[in-house]
Formats: sequence, structure tokens, C-alpha cells
Amino acid sequence: MDHQTNNSTKFPKIVIVGGGFGGIELTKRLKNKEVEVLMLDRHNYHTFQPLLYQVATGGLEADSIAFPLRKIFKNQKNFTFRVTDVESVDPSRNTVHTSIGEISYDFLVMATGSDTNFFGQKEIEHFSMAMKTIPEALNLRSMILQNLEEALVVTDPVAKSSLLNFVVVGGGPTGVELSGSLAELKKHILPKDYPELSIEDINVYLIEGSDELLGVMSDQASAKSKQFLEEMGVRVFTNLRVEAYDGNVIKLSDGQAINTKNVLWSAGVKGAVLDGLPTESIARGNRVIVDEFNRVSGQANIFAIGDVAAQITPETPNGLPGVAPVAIQQGTQLAKNIIRFINNEQPEAFKYFDKGSMATVGRNKAVVDIGKIRFQGVFAWFVWMFVHLMSLVGFRNKVVTFVNWVWSYFSYDRGTRLIIRRFSRQSMTEDPLAK
Amino acid sequence: MDHQTNNSTKFPKIVIVGGGFGGIELTKRLKNKEVEVLMLDRHNYHTFQPLLYQVATGGLEADSIAFPLRKIFKNQKNFTFRVTDVESVDPSRNTVHTSIGEISYDFLVMATGSDTNFFGQKEIEHFSMAMKTIPEALNLRSMILQNLEEALVVTDPVAKSSLLNFVVVGGGPTGVELSGSLAELKKHILPKDYPELSIEDINVYLIEGSDELLGVMSDQASAKSKQFLEEMGVRVFTNLRVEAYDGNVIKLSDGQAINTKNVLWSAGVKGAVLDGLPTESIARGNRVIVDEFNRVSGQANIFAIGDVAAQITPETPNGLPGVAPVAIQQGTQLAKNIIRFINNEQPEAFKYFDKGSMATVGRNKAVVDIGKIRFQGVFAWFVWMFVHLMSLVGFRNKVVTFVNWVWSYFSYDRGTRLIIRRFSRQSMTEDPLAK
Repeated sequence: MDHQTNNSTKFPKIVIVGGGFGGIELTKRLKNKEVEVLMLDRHNYHTFQPLLYQVATGGLEADSIAFPLRKIFKNQKNFTFRVTDVESVDPSRNTVHTSIGEISYDFLVMATGSDTNFFGQKEIEHFSMAMKTIPEALNLRSMILQNLEEALVVTDPVAKSSLLNFVVVGGGPTGVELSGSLAELKKHILPKDYPELSIEDINVYLIEGSDELLGVMSDQASAKSKQFLEEMGVRVFTNLRVEAYDGNVIKLSDGQAINTKNVLWSAGVKGAVLDGLPTESIARGNRVIVDEFNRVSGQANIFAIGDVAAQITPETPNGLPGVAPVAIQQGTQLAKNIIRFINNEQPEAFKYFDKGSMATVGRNKAVVDIGKIRFQGVFAWFVWMFVHLMSLVGFRNKVVTFVNWVWSYFSYDRGTRLIIRRFSRQSMTEDPLAK
Repeated sequence: MDHQTNNSTKFPKIVIVGGGFGGIELTKRLKNKEVEVLMLDRHNYHTFQPLLYQVATGGLEADSIAFPLRKIFKNQKNFTFRVTDVESVDPSRNTVHTSIGEISYDFLVMATGSDTNFFGQKEIEHFSMAMKTIPEALNLRSMILQNLEEALVVTDPVAKSSLLNFVVVGGGPTGVELSGSLAELKKHILPKDYPELSIEDINVYLIEGSDELLGVMSDQASAKSKQFLEEMGVRVFTNLRVEAYDGNVIKLSDGQAINTKNVLWSAGVKGAVLDGLPTESIARGNRVIVDEFNRVSGQANIFAIGDVAAQITPETPNGLPGVAPVAIQQGTQLAKNIIRFINNEQPEAFKYFDKGSMATVGRNKAVVDIGKIRFQGVFAWFVWMFVHLMSLVGFRNKVVTFVNWVWSYFSYDRGTRLIIRRFSRQSMTEDPLAK
């Protein structure tokens, strides 16, 4: 098919903010269409978020779960990419403001995903660690390993126990996977690496505010994941909230206090909405309200897909869940609809097809819900591994991840427990233009 | 063999500073001996320095060329490890000063390796990039990729050419390998990733002060490596020195000036000597003078091996070359001699067995000298790959690196061109106790 080069201004220009699951799918589906696609992202790579916890706990290299965005689209002629922070949108002028200047669009798609939500608790935000990006996961890995190293040299018992207590807040998939992975690290790796530490001194806590783990999944999955974690030695507390954390002591809503230098926050997310939209288009959880075509409420040519979009219907009063399949399916549908909008044809309403959900707790332990079918244990774990391996972008990443997993399975070992750059709160501020 | 645990104070305590090739070999050879070994390193991993250039140019994950030190020695009962910066030694009191306090020794071994030598040129040091550690290699990778991204958005032609000119200073193995790798990046990767850039605008320079590349190798190797690089499009200049670099323009000794934001410094090293030794024991290049038993001149119980040691004999007036085989062989010999010193037996003089040297320039292009045998090209390249693959610590690293190399060979692609943490001069200051 003959079409213009990237520099053409003839075809409608679609600006996609974010190279996550939704943005990638949408872009792919626009290949060979008579549009120009400009993708903007603050990183030059796609992050496979479901496996971030394995990077944080030394199971996988960061590079295995990231994929350069330019490489994904290297054969797509209507695709252009820029690394930049997008600050805000000006709907009246059809432009976005970015760290590399003002950029105009004919159609704008927010595929900006979600950020960690600390619900306004500034002190907790300052002292605890989130895990939504690769730099954050690597920083978490450094923090865990540095605190273990430091535990060897402190003499005060309270200081030592703060370094060896790990508190995961939030019992969703991320919290369950992270606490399970920490329990395995404690059982299989630390006794070999740190023979000087008593393994009983290392504690992993999981704190959940509601009455069950994995609230979005079936009751069987919730119950079984709790049982698995407890068998692995994780101290699971439900119906408890975090009241305060000052970097040394975490206070819980039942009056308990735990000395800890390691608080891992996975208790909530909020939509990463661009500034500049009217406040009435923002829903609960800072998500932007979209119609059945993923068009932002009140806007003709601005769309939102994935975690940042709240598609509110009578059946989904809080919008659809913030998971990869929703983003991917919305990206697929929106590609078709944008072409229809351009051709003045009738768009087609989005309909989510729920293929099921799953979470892994540890070696041979996972929970899977597919419609009415629920299963847990070894087979679920193999299903989880297969689905995640196949979803990774790129053949090389699949092979490297497969080698790592097979290696860990048979050796009870993990590959990559390195403190490459030391833990720092400062390194998390990422300004793309800072030198 | 029955021996005491780590906490025993009965056996002589050998403190080894540095987990490089020499420190690792020495420690391994002391397994099951009646000594206590305490290794100190500022990183918790061993770095396979010969492949750092592949990390810097996106060919390998950092994790593939690093190996956790605790893991290497997990079955060695007389081994203890601490992450710390060692600041100085006090020979009169048999102690070292470290960031985790004062540590006493019966025998001290400096296996501290070498640092980049800027020969006192502070401005060049500030603005150019070195590549002796994994954080430095990753920072270099980020800098290269960020400058390419920035070249897409600047409009001024001078600013653009500074972002696209890469100047490697120093024609030793590191400089040859790095400039060759950059030339391959330019040829095979950048046209696909950056179709908007003209490939002719990207230039790779290699600046060498003497009259040949790879001065330590044979004349054939020197000539052939220059020919290979020039065929690959690298502009090789010999007999030229860098006079100044202010972050924008590099000035050479023949009056040439090149606009560049990318100066990669591999023009010299200096021994990473600990403070506290008498100045008369320090030789040229900041190496510490040792006798034939690797004992530091004038000291009874302090030793030095590897890059930091200058073993000066009539045949080696500048000491032995700073390469891995020297460090490994000295580590092996010193393990035997320390036991002999403890038992009041006669130690055995070290003798270096030179197995040869090699360097790789690019795909199918390497140079190998083994005694009088010299060969270059495809076979040399396979020899280079085999030797380096086998030298990597750990089965997992060998497999992952092998997968990456096979993948790159057939696809003309590289796996990992990610800007994980953005380039920063600040991030290079590594204080192990900073939080």
C-alpha cells in the first residue's frame, strides 16, 4: 500500500500518549491505515507490568520484561515516536503540552495507565515503596538487598528487626504475588546467601483493608491464595488499614505497630489523567469518563483507553477493571472506530470479553478463574506461566524469561540479586530533560 | 575436614578487599583451609569487566555479566562477606577503616583493581564518560540513547551534530571494542530504530595517543584491528591526544575540533590503592609495589594482586599487564603462599604464564595472539566468544549470554536498548551508606 511518509500532514494525525498494552495494540491496528500515528511516552520501552514483582525480588532481569517501543514498530511506516513527558492537553486548540514543546493532534488518545494511589497520605507516600515502573522495581530490589546487608552489621535488636520485617500493603494481585515471592526468597535464597541471619527473624506481612485477598476474583481464589500464603509463612491480616508510617514503625488500625524499614505499597491505583480536561469528566479514582466508543465525555476527538478510562454502564458502575485485556480490547476496537470517525461512518460500541483472571502465589501455587471454571495449585501455576510467557513482547524476551524460570524451578535459585544502583528516594524523580 | 564457623577467632583472619578476578580466585583456593576469609567490596556482585562494552551498547543485560558474590561462595564455610567502602589501611594496627567501621586482619590482600585515569584533567573527567563499572556502563547506554532521541527534536545543525558524534578516546582493547560496537549499532540498529535520522550524520571516532591500536598486542593485531574498524566506518586517528573537552567541543593535539556530546574515555587506568601505605611503596600508575610473593614492599602481612599490584622485575619494569589472567594466577599462587607463611614454610615466587591476548572488533572480526601464533577474522572471533562465554561466572549467565549472542548474530539485532534510568552525572557518586 502506498502512503505518505511520517512527515506528511495529509493524513489525520493521531497522537497516542502512552506505550502500555492499550497504546501498543491501538498503534499496531493502525498499521497501513491512512493516518499518521505519533506515540509519546516518558520511557523508550514498553513495561510488562504483571511481572514487575519478579524484577523486584531478583527473579528476572529488568530487560526481559521491557521492550524498546521503536523496535516494536520498526516496520510500521506511519509511526513516529518521541520520548517526552506529556504535561497537559488543551482541547480548545487541539494540542498537548510536552517537555519537548507543543504538539498538535487531530485525534488524541490517552493511554496513560495508572499511578500508585496513596490516598493523600503524604508521609506514607514518602517512606514506602511503590512498584509501577521498572526503575521503581529495581529500586525496591536494591532496598531489600541493602537492608539485608545492613542487618548484618547493626547490633541494636530493634534496628535489626526493622530491617528484616517486610510489610506489603494491599492484597490485590500485586500484593499477593509480591508477598509470596518474598516468602520464597526467605525460604530458598536467604539461608544460603546470609547464613549469619536467623531465618526466623525475617518476617513477611500482608495487610489488606477488606475481608479477603484478591477481591476481584472468585471466593475460591481468595480463600486459596490466603491459605497458600499462610502455608508459605506470610502473616496475612485482613480487615486492617494502615494508619501511619514514619519510616520506622507502621501503625495499623487495630493498634498494632510493626518495626519496619520495608513497606511495599500496592494498596491502590489512580488514573494518570492529563491536566486540562474539565473536572466533570473525571470519575472516582481519577479516571476519565468515556462513552461506549472510549470517547472522553464532552470531547469530539479525545479518547481514553485502559486503566485511565472509566467506561461507566449500569453493569459497571465503577468502570471496567484496570487489567491488560481491557486495554488491549479497547485498543483494538478504537482503531476501527477512529477510522470510522474519519470516514464519517457509525462507530461500534465497545464490549469487554472477560477471558478470566489469575494470580500466582509461589512455586506450583496459582489461582485461576475462567468464567465459572476455577482451579488452583500446580496446573493453575503452569497456566499462569504459559499465559505470561506468551504475552511477553519479543522472541528474545520469551527465551530469556523461559531460561530464567526453568533455571529457578530446578535449582530453587534466582538469577539476579544485584544492587546495581543503590536504593535512593531521589532517583525516582524522573525528568526526561534533566541531565 | 572439620573446621570452625565464621565466628571463630581461632584461625588467622584474611581480609580480601575486592571481589574481582583476583579476589575470587584467592578466596576459592582458600576453601577448606584453616583460615577465616572476610571479603569486602563496595558492590554485592562480581563484574565481568571484559564485556562491559556490550552492556553499554545494548548487546547484553547488565545482569548477565554480574554475579552475586554471596552466591559464588555460598558453600564455603570459612567465607564472610560485607558490602562496604574500604577507605584506608593502618598497617601499624593491622586494621582497615571502612564505612561500616574498623576491621582487623591478620593478613590483608588488596585486590582492589583499577580506576579510570584522567591524568589530572578535571574538565575532561567531568564531561566525559568512563566505563569501569556496571552503573557506568548503564549510564553510558542511557546517554547514547538519550542523545539519539534528543537529536530528533533539536533543529540547530551544530547541536544536532554534537549529539550524533561519538568520540572514543584510547585505542586499547576497551576503546577498540567500544568503537567497533558503536559502528555496528550505527549500521544495523539505528537505521531501523531512527528512520528519521540520516545515518551519514552519525560518526564514530577513535583517538589514540600512540602510533598504533592495541599497543600491548602484536603488530599484526594492531594493524588488522585498525583495518577492521576503518572498514566498519570508524574514523581512527593515531598519534593524537585530547587537549580539552568542555562538554560540547573536543580539541585534539593537531588543532582539530569535533562537536560532540558523547566522549567515551578509555585512555588510561590507575591502581585503586588504599590510603595509608607509605608513598615509597607506590609505583607509576598508582600501583603498589610488590615482591615475587605479591607482598607489598616493606610490609609483612599486606599483599596486593591483580591490576593494583606492580610486580617489578628486570623483565617487567612497569609491572605485569592489568588483565584478568594475571589477577587469577596471582590469586592462585597467593592462596598457597599465605598458607605457607602461616605455617612458617618457604613461599614460592609467582611466575606469570601468558596464555595470549585477544580483542574483538565486531561481527566475525577479532584479533588473537597466542605466543607466536597470530590470527584475525572469523575464527578469531569464535575463539573470542568461546573464551569469554566460558569465563562468565555461573551457568545461568552463560546460557543467557549465549542466547543473546546467537540471537544478535542471526537477527543483526540487539536485545536491550532501554533507558532504564536516565543518564546523570550525579548517579555515579556511590556512597554505600547513603540512603
